[in-house]
Amino acid sequence: MNKQVLTFLLLIFGFYCSRGEDGYRLWLRYDRIDNPTLLQQYRDNITCYDIKTTSSLLSTAKEELLTGLQGLLGKGIPEAQQEGCLFAGTPASSPLIQSLHLEQDLASVGKEGYIIRSIHYKDKHGIVIAAGKDIGVLYGVFHFLRLLQTHQDIRQLSMQEAPALSYRILDHWDNLNRTVERGYAGMSIWNWWTLPGYIDPRYKDYARANASIGINGAVLNNVNASPLMLTGDYLIKVRALANLFRSYGIKVYLSVKFSAPIEIGGLKTADPLDPEVQQWWRQKAGEIYRLIPDFGGFLVKANSEGQPGPQNYGRTHADGANLLADALAPHKGIVIWRAFVYSATPDDRAGQAYNEFKPLDGKFRSNVLLQVKNGPIDFQPREPFHPLFGAMPRTPMMVEFQLTQEYLGFSTHLVYLAPLFKECLDADTYTGLHPAGKGAPVASTISGMAGVANIGNDINWCGHPFAQANWYAFGRLAWGAETAGAGSASPSSGQIAEEWIRQTFTNDATVLQTIKEMMLASREIAVDYMTPLGLHHIMGYDHHYGPAPWYDKASRPDWNPVYYHQADTAGIGFDRTVTGSNVLQQYAPGARLLWEDARNCPDAWLLWWHHVPWDHRMQSGRTLWEELCHKYDTGVDSVRWMQKTWDRLKETVDKERWEQVQMLLAIQANEALWWRNACLLYFQTFSRKPLPAGANQPDHNLPYYENLKFNYAPGTSQ
Amino acid sequence: MNKQVLTFLLLIFGFYCSRGEDGYRLWLRYDRIDNPTLLQQYRDNITCYDIKTTSSLLSTAKEELLTGLQGLLGKGIPEAQQEGCLFAGTPASSPLIQSLHLEQDLASVGKEGYIIRSIHYKDKHGIVIAAGKDIGVLYGVFHFLRLLQTHQDIRQLSMQEAPALSYRILDHWDNLNRTVERGYAGMSIWNWWTLPGYIDPRYKDYARANASIGINGAVLNNVNASPLMLTGDYLIKVRALANLFRSYGIKVYLSVKFSAPIEIGGLKTADPLDPEVQQWWRQKAGEIYRLIPDFGGFLVKANSEGQPGPQNYGRTHADGANLLADALAPHKGIVIWRAFVYSATPDDRAGQAYNEFKPLDGKFRSNVLLQVKNGPIDFQPREPFHPLFGAMPRTPMMVEFQLTQEYLGFSTHLVYLAPLFKECLDADTYTGLHPAGKGAPVASTISGMAGVANIGNDINWCGHPFAQANWYAFGRLAWGAETAGAGSASPSSGQIAEEWIRQTFTNDATVLQTIKEMMLASREIAVDYMTPLGLHHIMGYDHHYGPAPWYDKASRPDWNPVYYHQADTAGIGFDRTVTGSNVLQQYAPGARLLWEDARNCPDAWLLWWHHVPWDHRMQSGRTLWEELCHKYDTGVDSVRWMQKTWDRLKETVDKERWEQVQMLLAIQANEALWWRNACLLYFQTFSRKPLPAGANQPDHNLPYYENLKFNYAPGTSQ
Repeated sequence: MNKQVLTFLLLIFGFYCSRGEDGYRLWLRYDRIDNPTLLQQYRDNITCYDIKTTSSLLSTAKEELLTGLQGLLGKGIPEAQQEGCLFAGTPASSPLIQSLHLEQDLASVGKEGYIIRSIHYKDKHGIVIAAGKDIGVLYGVFHFLRLLQTHQDIRQLSMQEAPALSYRILDHWDNLNRTVERGYAGMSIWNWWTLPGYIDPRYKDYARANASIGINGAVLNNVNASPLMLTGDYLIKVRALANLFRSYGIKVYLSVKFSAPIEIGGLKTADPLDPEVQQWWRQKAGEIYRLIPDFGGFLVKANSEGQPGPQNYGRTHADGANLLADALAPHKGIVIWRAFVYSATPDDRAGQAYNEFKPLDGKFRSNVLLQVKNGPIDFQPREPFHPLFGAMPRTPMMVEFQLTQEYLGFSTHLVYLAPLFKECLDADTYTGLHPAGKGAPVASTISGMAGVANIGNDINWCGHPFAQANWYAFGRLAWGAETAGAGSASPSSGQIAEEWIRQTFTNDATVLQTIKEMMLASREIAVDYMTPLGLHHIMGYDHHYGPAPWYDKASRPDWNPVYYHQADTAGIGFDRTVTGSNVLQQYAPGARLLWEDARNCPDAWLLWWHHVPWDHRMQSGRTLWEELCHKYDTGVDSVRWMQKTWDRLKETVDKERWEQVQMLLAIQANEALWWRNACLLYFQTFSRKPLPAGANQPDHNLPYYENLKFNYAPGTSQ
Repeated sequence: MNKQVLTFLLLIFGFYCSRGEDGYRLWLRYDRIDNPTLLQQYRDNITCYDIKTTSSLLSTAKEELLTGLQGLLGKGIPEAQQEGCLFAGTPASSPLIQSLHLEQDLASVGKEGYIIRSIHYKDKHGIVIAAGKDIGVLYGVFHFLRLLQTHQDIRQLSMQEAPALSYRILDHWDNLNRTVERGYAGMSIWNWWTLPGYIDPRYKDYARANASIGINGAVLNNVNASPLMLTGDYLIKVRALANLFRSYGIKVYLSVKFSAPIEIGGLKTADPLDPEVQQWWRQKAGEIYRLIPDFGGFLVKANSEGQPGPQNYGRTHADGANLLADALAPHKGIVIWRAFVYSATPDDRAGQAYNEFKPLDGKFRSNVLLQVKNGPIDFQPREPFHPLFGAMPRTPMMVEFQLTQEYLGFSTHLVYLAPLFKECLDADTYTGLHPAGKGAPVASTISGMAGVANIGNDINWCGHPFAQANWYAFGRLAWGAETAGAGSASPSSGQIAEEWIRQTFTNDATVLQTIKEMMLASREIAVDYMTPLGLHHIMGYDHHYGPAPWYDKASRPDWNPVYYHQADTAGIGFDRTVTGSNVLQQYAPGARLLWEDARNCPDAWLLWWHHVPWDHRMQSGRTLWEELCHKYDTGVDSVRWMQKTWDRLKETVDKERWEQVQMLLAIQANEALWWRNACLLYFQTFSRKPLPAGANQPDHNLPYYENLKFNYAPGTSQ
């Protein structure tokens, strides 16, 4: 085809596909490769395919591969075995793969891993995507498509991958009425009302997106669970989703309410040691597995924030978890028991989960996993890793991250969370076998990762166009949380950002680099304008929107910001060392060393661990008060830097997303300034010091900020 | 270009635009004309354009025209004045249009109408879209694009259009927390939380869709209004939408709570005769108009279903409406006062609005419109027209239709509502000047049409892929409710369906015809399986889902189905003639004649007007009981016919929408059968007669249907 026709073609494409970039396609866009050299390379090396579809997973793999290649190559490829053939399958499904004798390599990548390799066979060149199990083939296919989407050279492929963690699960805090607790992207994508008869096309795209990044489980409903979820009417709806998700390697889990035997079972108690209660759960498990043979299991929030649990009956969390574990065990189901519990005592909440659970190590059934939030409080912009990691060697654990930005600006702030996830996963717990326990990062102490989903029915799924990146990063990190035995390296935050940008925005190196810099800086920027220097939990009450460090009206002391910052005329910060609540001692000695001395505790953690005088000299040479002002100002200035950076991309990013992000950055800039003004004015009432020279005066006085009201904040049950 | 290349092109289009048909584009798809002959005709006759953009409305017109033509012609056209030029503008904006001396014609189409005409000028051919005002140009542009989308011949154009009604308004029953009362398509498209900073791209597409069918107003919030809507925080959000909508000729209106002066104004009363209250509303109106100079006005639900109103203070509806009208009058705003009121007396609810409002004729200010539901009860599948139409000659009126399918199967049933709208609009009120008042259809008695929107944030806007057609039909009928003076003909339900199908599915004559037949039959089918023969209001309590003719537990008698069907062993139906409630006398004599004698009252209205013995002989020769059974069976069978019809279209309709509609029709078929079984079993307890020979026995017994429970039904405040 000559160049004129090509130009014409591209022109037509532009018109024909005039539809705006609405973000619905996530990172599975599969637009035609726009680099002619690479397009030629790909077309030369992928001329036909050979995939035997002996299972629904392999059918999915084939469908995804052909859909992706059709888009990326701009043409379909035939089923054949000529030069340049792409093979995908297992030794059981593919004679060619059988003939390659990959047994040893396949054994090393385990039941979900895969190998992608350029091969030479019968005088022909080809590419093989091989796995021991069908699900590995699907994962391999998505990896292969990612290579093309990110413009990698595919002429000499030799790679193998296996997931670091077995459980890679999204937790949906979605209610049956389709509201989403802490959801900022519309309402629940689960339309329970029209299920099971109507399968929204979105359900399939959800499964595709998850499978493409290795997510293998979904908890469909809120941990503050409705007991109705376990009734027959709803289970047939759950089955409809499970039937679809099965072909994408995704197991369905449900959050259960511990008191369900009373509420929907008609029993008088939910006591875990009551035989009738045990019988009820066994029967319920049987009912579920008759409908969904590969049902994943239960997620439980018990004796936490008003939810019922075993302690209502004088039993332990282990008694409660084991009750459900025994019911699920015959079906190979698991119980994921949340460690997010705290009582209304004046204790330091940061230490309560440890105190509650540490003594139970070894008391849980083997099919129980303990799900621990990344930090000891609650998904703050920055927290130290949770002291339970590494502290319960006989109890398998999952880390729970929050993708939805409850404390990070909702879906209006651009905050790329991979650095937050990595900070936790890479943190050394000092609980290992090496001297001083060194070399035992959080990632090495866990069996799974749960992400509280940031997904809603907004067209672009996550509200902010960049919030998708957090879903993506979660999956990629759950897959590669640390260097796995099979040799797949843990991706860096930057690598993940780059992958995502290439797949969603552009492969142009300059633009890519610019966007990546914004993303990588964004989390620290949010910390700076919200909670610098180790501050935490100083946001608005209930809705958790905006700053409210002054708030002291909650029914429990540990729901009040003032409880957490402890500001007074002497200084600011929560003393958690031996002179304070001493929850520091819950950590291994090696970890403690990092934090225990205020004189060398890193700035980022200072006020988490120490109550520090206002004139404390920081490593910068500034006083604490000056440093606090400086950090807030840096946060505000950095958002303005993001705005300017984004403005520069106007001609290189599609109009729709460019405009959306521009508007959202303006909101973020206003809110960063609001955080800075409100917090500094408030803390100034204690520090009694002026703003440093050159700092701008706030636009309003403190009462103005204290009296702001927010009606109908999203994510609450208002 | 040769045929091979074309084939290749089409192939590529298919791959490149592999994205599914998600329905987002509504009837503004603008895909390239797929008929080569027509494409050539259009390209020959539209070679360039000449539009001077002297206002934001003209800028919109130009943008829409160029977007549409780029898609439809598959290429852009230059700005020029050569052969085949398309001119659009007003005499003031366009020298060419000025030179055509269209003054008389333009005067005849009024301030919103337009002319589309093939012209010959300076030895060239061209097409002109001319209007007296800028908004007419925009409407003309959309009309012109519709000609192309529906494959009309444009070689000899000569048409002029003007709207029949001045007020063409969508009423959104959207709450500030984004729930939608009686909404079945997701949550509200208004994201109040992120307004005014973030302008969702959807807002513009909403405005485009409305403008394309002539809708010129939107009431943004629920008639059960939050007083917060009128606070400054929300008014700046409303302004952001108004600023956008202005360029599409759409005015913004707000529903107001009558007691707002108390709730947000701090007054002790909302008495319309209290000077402080009057002052408060005047100030509030001033505040609104400073923000939104072209604000439309207020919609009010007062003294209705628990809402406060003037009667709380012993005042009349006229006192209440005039209070607001006086506040708005200096700004040229209007008050739309709803006539949907009824007290909790044992009176026939069907007559209460008439009794309340008829005596107030002439008592309203000139900027008050009375908004009357199409029928006297509440948006039932079939009702006679409301007796107020034609009964208050000194009071301008609007008819209120419900697009959202509260009583018509939610968004899971395919029910095309144009026949319902037309049945009302065309019904003769017999209140005219001709002998016996003949020739005064409802359409001739109104100044506007309000449609309770069926729009939510579902990707396809309305939930059911066919529900969009009701939005479309509403707009087209509001524009052409009756033959207007300027000569535009009122489109038939079939014409509107055809237009919509051509723009959304296909121009293929056979497929078009098949879909059209389904659509045109669908409303009568729903009546048959839900409420045949004049039955009404026998649906489930509160959520209004499914059949519940047995229900008698409501706190008011007239919220109970048993109140409406009056079934007993003697017969069934509500006697509203002189022997009963006699609300029939509220109608003009000519109208009464149609219904007052049970012996010749049309079957469709029989049980609305008469209590009829079970063995009453129908026009078919069947007894009433047999006819009732026959109607329900016909309804069920007809849904199955729709299913079979749709199945036949599998190869000719895109996969995505075909599958969606197939699933939804299956739900509809199940629910039609449920209605039939539940209603016949229940009514059989009175008729004491067997089902006619050949009729299927219900799957369950009556208690089964009576005990069905529905949790979290959409559209309620659960």
